[in-house]
Formats: sequence, C-alpha cells, structure tokens
Amino acid sequence: MRPLKLDDDRLFPADPAVRSIARELYGEVCDLPIISPHGHTDPSWFALNQPFGNAAELLLQPDHYLFRMLYSQGVRLEDLGIGADANPRVAWRILAENFHLFRGTPSRIWLDWVFTEVFGIEVRLEGETADLYYDTITEALATDAFRPRTLFERFNIEVIATTENPLDTLEHHRTIRESGWSGRVVTAYRPDPVVDPEFEGFAGNLAKFSELTGEDCLSWQGYLAAHRKRRAFFAAMGATSTDHGHPTARTADLSPIEAEALFGRIVGGDFSEWDAELFRAQMLTEMAAMSLDDGLVMQIHPGSFRNHNAALFASHGRDKGADIPMRTDYVEALKPLLDRFGNSRDFTLILFTLDESSYARELAPLAGHYPCLRLGPAWWFHDSPEGMRRFRRMTTETAGFYNTVGFNDDTRAFLSIPARHDLARRIDCGFLAELVAEHRLELDEAHEVARALAYDLAKAAYKL
Amino acid sequence: MRPLKLDDDRLFPADPAVRSIARELYGEVCDLPIISPHGHTDPSWFALNQPFGNAAELLLQPDHYLFRMLYSQGVRLEDLGIGADANPRVAWRILAENFHLFRGTPSRIWLDWVFTEVFGIEVRLEGETADLYYDTITEALATDAFRPRTLFERFNIEVIATTENPLDTLEHHRTIRESGWSGRVVTAYRPDPVVDPEFEGFAGNLAKFSELTGEDCLSWQGYLAAHRKRRAFFAAMGATSTDHGHPTARTADLSPIEAEALFGRIVGGDFSEWDAELFRAQMLTEMAAMSLDDGLVMQIHPGSFRNHNAALFASHGRDKGADIPMRTDYVEALKPLLDRFGNSRDFTLILFTLDESSYARELAPLAGHYPCLRLGPAWWFHDSPEGMRRFRRMTTETAGFYNTVGFNDDTRAFLSIPARHDLARRIDCGFLAELVAEHRLELDEAHEVARALAYDLAKAAYKL
Amino acid sequence: MRPLKLDDDRLFPADPAVRSIARELYGEVCDLPIISPHGHTDPSWFALNQPFGNAAELLLQPDHYLFRMLYSQGVRLEDLGIGADANPRVAWRILAENFHLFRGTPSRIWLDWVFTEVFGIEVRLEGETADLYYDTITEALATDAFRPRTLFERFNIEVIATTENPLDTLEHHRTIRESGWSGRVVTAYRPDPVVDPEFEGFAGNLAKFSELTGEDCLSWQGYLAAHRKRRAFFAAMGATSTDHGHPTARTADLSPIEAEALFGRIVGGDFSEWDAELFRAQMLTEMAAMSLDDGLVMQIHPGSFRNHNAALFASHGRDKGADIPMRTDYVEALKPLLDRFGNSRDFTLILFTLDESSYARELAPLAGHYPCLRLGPAWWFHDSPEGMRRFRRMTTETAGFYNTVGFNDDTRAFLSIPARHDLARRIDCGFLAELVAEHRLELDEAHEVARALAYDLAKAAYKL
Repeated sequence: MRPLKLDDDRLFPADPAVRSIARELYGEVCDLPIISPHGHTDPSWFALNQPFGNAAELLLQPDHYLFRMLYSQGVRLEDLGIGADANPRVAWRILAENFHLFRGTPSRIWLDWVFTEVFGIEVRLEGETADLYYDTITEALATDAFRPRTLFERFNIEVIATTENPLDTLEHHRTIRESGWSGRVVTAYRPDPVVDPEFEGFAGNLAKFSELTGEDCLSWQGYLAAHRKRRAFFAAMGATSTDHGHPTARTADLSPIEAEALFGRIVGGDFSEWDAELFRAQMLTEMAAMSLDDGLVMQIHPGSFRNHNAALFASHGRDKGADIPMRTDYVEALKPLLDRFGNSRDFTLILFTLDESSYARELAPLAGHYPCLRLGPAWWFHDSPEGMRRFRRMTTETAGFYNTVGFNDDTRAFLSIPARHDLARRIDCGFLAELVAEHRLELDEAHEVARALAYDLAKAAYKL
Repeated sequence: MRPLKLDDDRLFPADPAVRSIARELYGEVCDLPIISPHGHTDPSWFALNQPFGNAAELLLQPDHYLFRMLYSQGVRLEDLGIGADANPRVAWRILAENFHLFRGTPSRIWLDWVFTEVFGIEVRLEGETADLYYDTITEALATDAFRPRTLFERFNIEVIATTENPLDTLEHHRTIRESGWSGRVVTAYRPDPVVDPEFEGFAGNLAKFSELTGEDCLSWQGYLAAHRKRRAFFAAMGATSTDHGHPTARTADLSPIEAEALFGRIVGGDFSEWDAELFRAQMLTEMAAMSLDDGLVMQIHPGSFRNHNAALFASHGRDKGADIPMRTDYVEALKPLLDRFGNSRDFTLILFTLDESSYARELAPLAGHYPCLRLGPAWWFHDSPEGMRRFRRMTTETAGFYNTVGFNDDTRAFLSIPARHDLARRIDCGFLAELVAEHRLELDEAHEVARALAYDLAKAAYKL
Repeated sequence: MRPLKLDDDRLFPADPAVRSIARELYGEVCDLPIISPHGHTDPSWFALNQPFGNAAELLLQPDHYLFRMLYSQGVRLEDLGIGADANPRVAWRILAENFHLFRGTPSRIWLDWVFTEVFGIEVRLEGETADLYYDTITEALATDAFRPRTLFERFNIEVIATTENPLDTLEHHRTIRESGWSGRVVTAYRPDPVVDPEFEGFAGNLAKFSELTGEDCLSWQGYLAAHRKRRAFFAAMGATSTDHGHPTARTADLSPIEAEALFGRIVGGDFSEWDAELFRAQMLTEMAAMSLDDGLVMQIHPGSFRNHNAALFASHGRDKGADIPMRTDYVEALKPLLDRFGNSRDFTLILFTLDESSYARELAPLAGHYPCLRLGPAWWFHDSPEGMRRFRRMTTETAGFYNTVGFNDDTRAFLSIPARHDLARRIDCGFLAELVAEHRLELDEAHEVARALAYDLAKAAYKL
C-alpha cells in the first residue's frame, strides 16, 4: 500500500518565489464560502436528505469523466454497472485496478481530495486497496455525517445552483425552500428539451409544455408565453440564470413573420437540419429578449457534438462520455443577438467554449468590448490545471479579469465540489503569483483579484 | 496613495537562473535605437510640432485598447469624450477609477511606463490620484520638453513609419522633410480605401484617386497606373512598404480579361460580396507584382471583422474598439499569389495574423519555406507578454528567428512607443534566456539573436 | 572556433527542483532500447550495409527540414545538390555558413547530437569549421564503424519500421531477414499511391498492382483482394501496421453498391475532386475492416497540403519541403469509420495531427472515449521541445498517458534517430517532473509513466 497525502503546496508553480506568493494569496481565499452558480447536482439530495448509497453508486457510476476513460481502455460499461446491474464492489475494483489511467488528469486530483478530505483515507487507490476503499466509503455514507445537507454545510457552500428543464415541477426545490433548512439551493432554466427540435422526444415535450403552462405551445405566441411563465416560476424558485447547450453558438434575429413560419415548420415536424439550427438560433435571441425583461442571466454552452458514438447512444442513451467538442465560431454566430442586445447594460450573457482556439481570437475580444458579455470559466474537458492556465493566459490580456465570472464547478459529483473550487483557487493564485513575480501586477492588487476570482465575481455576475 | 515604481526585472521569467540570463541579454539591447517600421502615429505631430493637449486627449481618447475595456464594463463612450464633448478631467477620472480593469493587460504595463518614465509620477493611478495625474500630465504637455519632436529624440527613435492611404497628399511628410529636422519619419502605402469595394465611400474615393493621379480610375489600366504613380510618390516620401488590411488573406490570380471584367462590375457598383472579396484578392496579387517592380515591402494584416458592433458603428464610426478577430486561413488563401511570386528572392511579403492557431500550423511552415515570406510580430490583441511568448514558442521551431522581422509597435499612442519596444525586448530576452537555460541555445548566440530581434531584423526586412 | 559540448541537463526545465526530478526520471529511461515503430529509413541500408557517402549526401540532401529553411532564406536548392549535381563540400559549406538560421529549431539539437555523439566533433558548425566537419564526417563514413548495421547496433535499436507502398517488392526486407543479421527491421503498409486517385501515376500504379497481385485491380472486388494479399505479404515481412497520409481525416461508409460505382468512376479516370476525396475516405474504412481481420494497426497522418509550391513541384518533384499543414477536422470526419469500428477492442487506430488546435478539442476527447483510438506523438513540424510540451499539456488531462503510444521518430535521417528519441525522453521526463513538483503525480508513478512513454507504450500499441 502506498501512502496518500495531499501536499499543502499542490498545484502551485514550482519556482520557490512564485510558490511563496501563490501560497500567500491562497491563504486569504481558501476559506471563502463556495459560490456554485452553475452545476448539475440533484436537488432531491437536499430535499430528501437521504444517505448516499455505496462507493460505486456515488463516485463512479454518475461520473462520465471516470467511465469514459475506463471505456477507452476496453472496460465494458456493463461491468461498471452502467446500463446493467453489476456488483458495486466489483465495479469499484475495476476502477481501483485501473486508477493509473487517471495519472495526469483532474479526475485523479479531485478524487484524491475526496478520499483524504472527505473520507480520511491515507493510502492510494489501487487493486490492493480496492476493498478497503469500498468499505470505508460505503460505511461512512451510511452515517448521518455524510447525509447531503450535512456535507453541504461542511463544504461551506453559500449557494448552489442546479439545472432543470422547463418541464420539471421543481418539487424538490419547493421542498427545500419549505423545509426550513438554511442551505441555499436554487435552480436554473435550461430549456433545451423544448427548444431543440432534434432533442429526443421534442414533440412530446411540447405537449407537456402546453399542459404544464396552460398555453398552446403549438402556436408561436403560446410557445413564447409558456417560456415566460416557466421562467417566472423558475425565478420564483430561486433561479437567477438560464442555460443553453446548443451544438453551435449561432443566433438569429428573424422578423416575427419569419419566426412564426419557422416555428410552424418545426411543430409540423417537417423541418430540415437547417430549420432546426435556425430555430435554436432564433430562440437564443428570444431568450435574450426575455432576459432583458425578467433579469435572468443567460449562459450559452455551445460546441459539443452530443452522443457521437451512435451504437453507444442506441444501447445506453445520453451522457455516456461520448460528447466530443467541435470547432466553434462566435464572431459571426453571435452577431444577430449582439446587434439587438449587445450594448445593453442590463443584460448579462455568459459565454463558454470547448474550443480553446476561440479564447484569445474571439471570446476575449468580444467580452472586452460588448457591455453584456462575460466569459465563463474553462469548461468541461478544460476544467483542469493546464486548461485553466490556458484560459487565463489567453483571455486576461484582452478581456482582463473583470469580464470573467469566477469559477463554475459544473458537476453532478457532489463530493468533488470543494476539490474543484480548491483546484481553481490554487491555479488562479498561481497565475496571479506569476504576474506578481514578473512585476506585471502588484501584490496588493493580486490579493484583490484573488478574492474576486474565488468569490465576488461569481456572486455578482450571477446575481446571487 | 499607493507607490508606483517600475522594477528593473519586470517581464523577465521568475526563475533566478533564467532571469539572470535575461537581464544580461537585455542589458545589451535596451539602449538600441527604436526602429518603428509599422505604426499609426500622426505625421502632423512631427510636421507642426505643436504641444499635445491634455491627459485625456492624448492618452485616453485615441486609445481603443483603453476605451473598449471601459465600454465593456458599462462606461459610456460619450462620458469619455468620444463621439461627444466631455470634460477631459472628468473623462480622465473615469479611467482612474476603473484602472483596476486593466490589471493583467498590456495597456496597464505601457501606461505605467508612460506615467513613470515620461512624466515622473510615483504613485499609482486610481480615483484618489486622478487629479494629480491629470494636472501633472497636462502641465507637462504644455512645456517644450513634451513637444513631439523633442519626445521623438528623447525616445531614441531612429526611424518611424506612419500609414497613409493613396488619397493622402503627404503634406505633413513633405513639411517634415523640408524642415531640416533630423528626425526620420516615413510613410507607408495603405490603399484599402481605394482597393476594398466595401470601404465606406469607395466610389468617391475612386473619383478622388482619378483626380489626384490624372488617371482614369474607372478603367482597369488607369486604376492600376494610378496605384503605380501613388506608390512612386509614397516611395519618394520615404515609404519602403505597403500594407493591406483585408478581412481575409485571400489572393487571386485572374487572367487580365477576368480581372478587367471584375473591375467593371466593381466600379459599376453592381457587385456581390464574392466579387468584392475576389477583387481584394486580385489586388493583393497586383500589389505584389508592383512590389517586384518598385521594391516596396508588402504587408498583409488580415482577419479582423471590422465594426462588428452595428449600432456603435452607426453612431460613432470606425475604430471604436469593435473590431473582432476571425479564424483566418493562409494555406489556400495565399496560394495564387505565392504561385506567381513565392519563389522570388527580390520580394518581401510580411504576414500578420490575429488567429494564433495559424502560427505553428500555417505561418511558420509557409515562412520556413517560401523565400519571399517573413512573419510579422504578434499583432494587436496579441501584442502582449503572453501573446509574444506564444508567438515565439509556436513559430521559432519551424521558421527560426531569421524569418521574423523584429517588433512593430503598430500604435497611434506615441508616448507608449518606447514602452512597447521595451516590453518586446524584455519578452524576447526572456524567451532567449529560457533557451539558454535549457541548453537549446548558447549564450553568445542568444546575444546575437537578441540584437537581431531588437534592431537588425526590422531594419533589414523593411529596408530602413 | 567555438566549442560544442552537449550539456547533461539539456532540455530539462530550468527550475532546479524540477530539473532534479527530471534528471532522476531520465536516468532510468535513457538507456532503454529504441523502439521506432514509424519512420522512413531506407531498408536497402540494412540489406546491403554499404558505407554512407559524404556529409552532404548523408546529412543535408535528404533532410527537408534543413533545405527548406535554407531555401526560405534565398539559398538555391541546386547549390545544395538537390535537383542538380553540386560539389558536396560546397553544399556543406552553405549549410555551415547558414547554420545560425537553425537557432531555436529541433534540427539544430538533432544535428549537434550527431556531430558530437556520432562523430566526436567538439567545435560548432559555422563557416570556419565547414571543411573540418566535411572531412571528419566523410572520412568516418568510409570506415566499417559507420556502416548502417554497425550504427543500428550502436544506437541500441530494438526494432525499426520502414514504410513501403504496396508496389514495393520488399526485396531489401527479404534480404535482411535472410541475412542472419540480428537487427529487427520491419516494413509498414502505406498504400497512398494505389489509394489516392490524385497521386502521381495512379492509373499506372493500379496496373502494376494488378500485375503484382494477379488480381484485376480495375474491378472493386479485385482491387480489395489485391490489398488483402499485399497486406498479408507485408505482414509476413514483419509489418504490424498500415499508414495513410491523406489530405484530410475524412472517412466514409458507403454501401457496397455505392462504393463499387465510385470505384468505377475512379478507375474510369472521369472523377471529380469530391469523388477522389470520397474514395480516399471510403478506403480508410475498408482498411479498418481489413485491420479487424489481419490485426494490422492502422495509422492516419492527415492534414498536409502536399506540394504547395507549384513551380518547385514542377521542377523538383515531391518532398521538397513545400508541404504545409492545414486545419483538420476529426469529429465529423472520423464518424463513419468510428460508427462501424469505434467500439472494437480488437482494432487500433492511431491518430496524428498537424493541427494542434485539435489536440485538446477533438483528439484527446475522442481517444479518451473510443476503445479503438490512440494518439500518435507530436508530428513533423511539432516534433520539437515546445511541440511535445504542447502535446502533453493539451492531451494528458483528457486522454491520460495510456491513450498515447510513446514516440515515433518518423525520419529518414538515420543518424538522428537516437537524438530524436533522446529529445523525446528528456521532454517527457521534464513534463512529468513538473507534475511531480506541483504534486499532481507521485514520483514513483512518474517513474512508471516515464518508462511507458519511452518504451512500453510504443511496443504494445504497435504490437512490436
């Protein structure tokens, strides 16, 4: 068995002078509460406060970062209990025996934090320690100290946003709010299932949308009214933001007549790929218009080719680690929306990308000009030490720090949330320390920026 | 009030051994005269030698790096005196109170240099010091020591190129040449207003072009002859280069008959977007052909989506910080021109990009093969510490140092010119120091390269 | 004369703590045998074991990295003995006098290794030492100690793969195998000349393909059968892999009827550019299908615009340093092939790129999911210290180390092979040392990974 211990200086640059500055900066932000303005935790955890299950069920099966890597090296998803029943102890053992695959990845860093800081384990995960891990974690999860609300408080989370679609009743959010528990859990409005004509079950979703809202969602005006109603309901349940996960960042600004005609083709079910793309594009602009009315902050997460693996999608469904980033244009794509709302000071549009070539070329110049634009943090595959450093190096010189919005953990892996924020804070402090060491920033300023990146900017940008 | 002092080691890498080498290299190049082969200073400054105005008028209002950032955070351009009259002291105060926005940006580095080295200010710019700054700078500007020619000499500028379009009379350049002043100010030929059919006022520009040259610029041969005449006139006024700011790097090599027919559509005003693109493309090849005759070095600055913000363009016009880089292809785009002139040893074509993904993929391989090609330095949004480092890291291994052309300050912010050259020299010396520290280059070689990058290459490539 | 001496710490990061770890890691892998699974050495060298010629003939004329740089600075290829006879001593002198052009390039690093480690030269190459170099090298080459087989053994090469096309008789490989010499030299199947309809001499190549295989290669089934036969023959001569150098990574999965009709157009000679592209695309999928049968590992090297310089191609032919990388898509391009074989555990497809923007965006996510995919090392223009660092920084966090395949030297410059592997091992150890120093990886794990990257992964991935 090999020892596992987190080093106090982990993730800081190696140079002693830089590291010393980073350590000082980090010391002032490490205990700030967590603002988690965008993520995918399950509100039922906080509503019902039931114990989590076993190690595999909590840490392995929902984590597509983990099972995609195992799958890439020949592990069958069924053996991990994904898309089939599997002995969770055996599934966990597969992870343990293949844990070397994660060397150099952020998953390894996040998990080691969870293992040591949440469960107090002091040996590394490998074949030899698989059962020790499985038992330690599973037994702990059965205790009250590891119930969701207790962990939420232990993690010092000031506020967390979940993500729901317009058809969600938000019953768990209601339960939380009515429970008297002090934890702040808010929702976010993610309408892809009723906005993307190519989403599975789109027609049925529209029918439910009508039912839920009392609007005729097969008419353009009724459909827009339904969105307005659900946005208002989401806002009442704490939402301060919307989110849009389209294949591209394309926006459109059709005339009302054109928009209505397009919608007619969409609901008629007789539409081309281009119609679907144009409809999504138009809906981003419509959502922006509604944001100007209701104040919800808008997020666009474009550029993922969802469900790239056709056979796996057929057998296992969505979100099985087969989403692949694509080249993404923002300059042409956003222009229709920006032509209408780009100069507004009362509208916030937060942009994300999976295409890092757009950081310095498109996103930083856009955010460094348009009043409505802000840049979301390094996203998904880039939510990692090197990815975050590239983000800062490629956006700061044109957009500055204050056109960015702090960190999003963007995760459904609840236990890893403090690890992810800790990683982001360490990397940002390391980046600032480099600027200080090279005399590109004064130390007192770096302290202010470190706090802004760790706490203030997320709170302000998301109105939390 | 917080102290402001430039550190002697600023912008050098933090590692002590690397920094020590960088300092040694820099010590040999820091006092070399400035070669400024491409920029946008106003020749009337040097012709008339009138005092500059106040702090806001000199340092804020012409600097789109500054006001675009302020605008992105909700400041109104009118409040800065852009597109409207404003109290310059109040405008300056807005900059001062928002100066934290520039943390981590090159503007901050350039301005701090100007504040300390040009004006001797020893406290940082912030709300509290806004008036002190405004008064100190404005009073200094009224003195003879801060007149353009005196600053030119104080800055140790050996030669500076401005940029004019073919309709410019170059009267200021004539005045300078006839004045007996020893400062060397040359022009450069930037024909976009009479080459780009989509430029504002293109038809009127052609009329003026005819008038000025005595050629019939509505005929293809007359139009080409007019260019030849104006190029000769510009060369007589010191020009050694031309410059072309097209949306793309596309070139074309049409037959004379096709070119003439295309020109007919262009001057007829009945042309498509593709016609306009093709005409610009053809004109790059025509300009290259003329360069083979008259020896002017050719520059292409492609890939900027000009005036992206439609409303701002309508209200405030060009150059208001709303130009956004686009993905740019060079491999296909340059082939027609390179097929004609690529192997010439008597022709120099200097390429720039706003799309850093082209550095290692396209530009370095092209420049590392074609005799006519050289790479311009990191441009515009990338004219920054991190941007320059990326440029060197991504071009050197394929194109070497000697297919690059040293530094361009490319600025209209006259007072920042020494700051920009100083920054470039420091970053280049830091890069070379890393190569030396990793034993990828010997120290004596690094000295030679440092001098080449700071002085020799620009002078040679631009024939200055 | 300036001294030439390789530093023991060359190519390690400058920070003392990181360097110390890198040195330790490197110490354990520096003497591992060389696995060279993909390259372009000439099998006749090892078959005939004749002495190499003179310095220019061995080191300059076949090395397009060298002559492309010289050409870019105005040297004529004819003066180097390329496409014309030239005095080799004079050609060598041109290299010597221009050797400063290679400062900061990997060619300089490789050559300095060859000069010192192979030939024992202790002064730098420059004009003054040109003759000393020429004589020293040329005299050494005439001795038995510098014959190909002796160098092969001295270089500690465990196995090397050459690359041949299906029309090659592999007689040299046969000679090697029958010679009793213990050196392991295998071939690889690179069918571009009979797969790419736009390859020079394609129609004639098909005729030879028929002749050689006894199949009717003008019929679709005969053509496929011919490939199967030659693949089997290549495998019998040691091949474990195929390689495909297409302009793009496009794959297709046509129905048998469509494929046959397309092939009819291709062999009929009446095909469009799109037909040619589609045929190459279909053939990648056909090759993958054959790999599932015969177990050959498949490699795709896409994205090079071959022979970009039209005049040079006309006068000097292929491979004259005028191949330029292009933007390359993988996400859409590979989907047809991956839809058929992506989930196979018995098939290995190794991807290369010249478009580094695809590393983090496309290639690492694809390889981190699909069981069949692995990532080849930094290729061609990116086979360099900075290029390799970018590769590791941009792929590891998503794909890990174990979805990569170690190093390929990919060279025809036989003497530089140990230098290239040494460079790769040093850079990888430096990267791992950074991870260790930042506590992102434990030292004992870094040792395991260093060995995997230097030896194990290449051997396993290529089944050598």
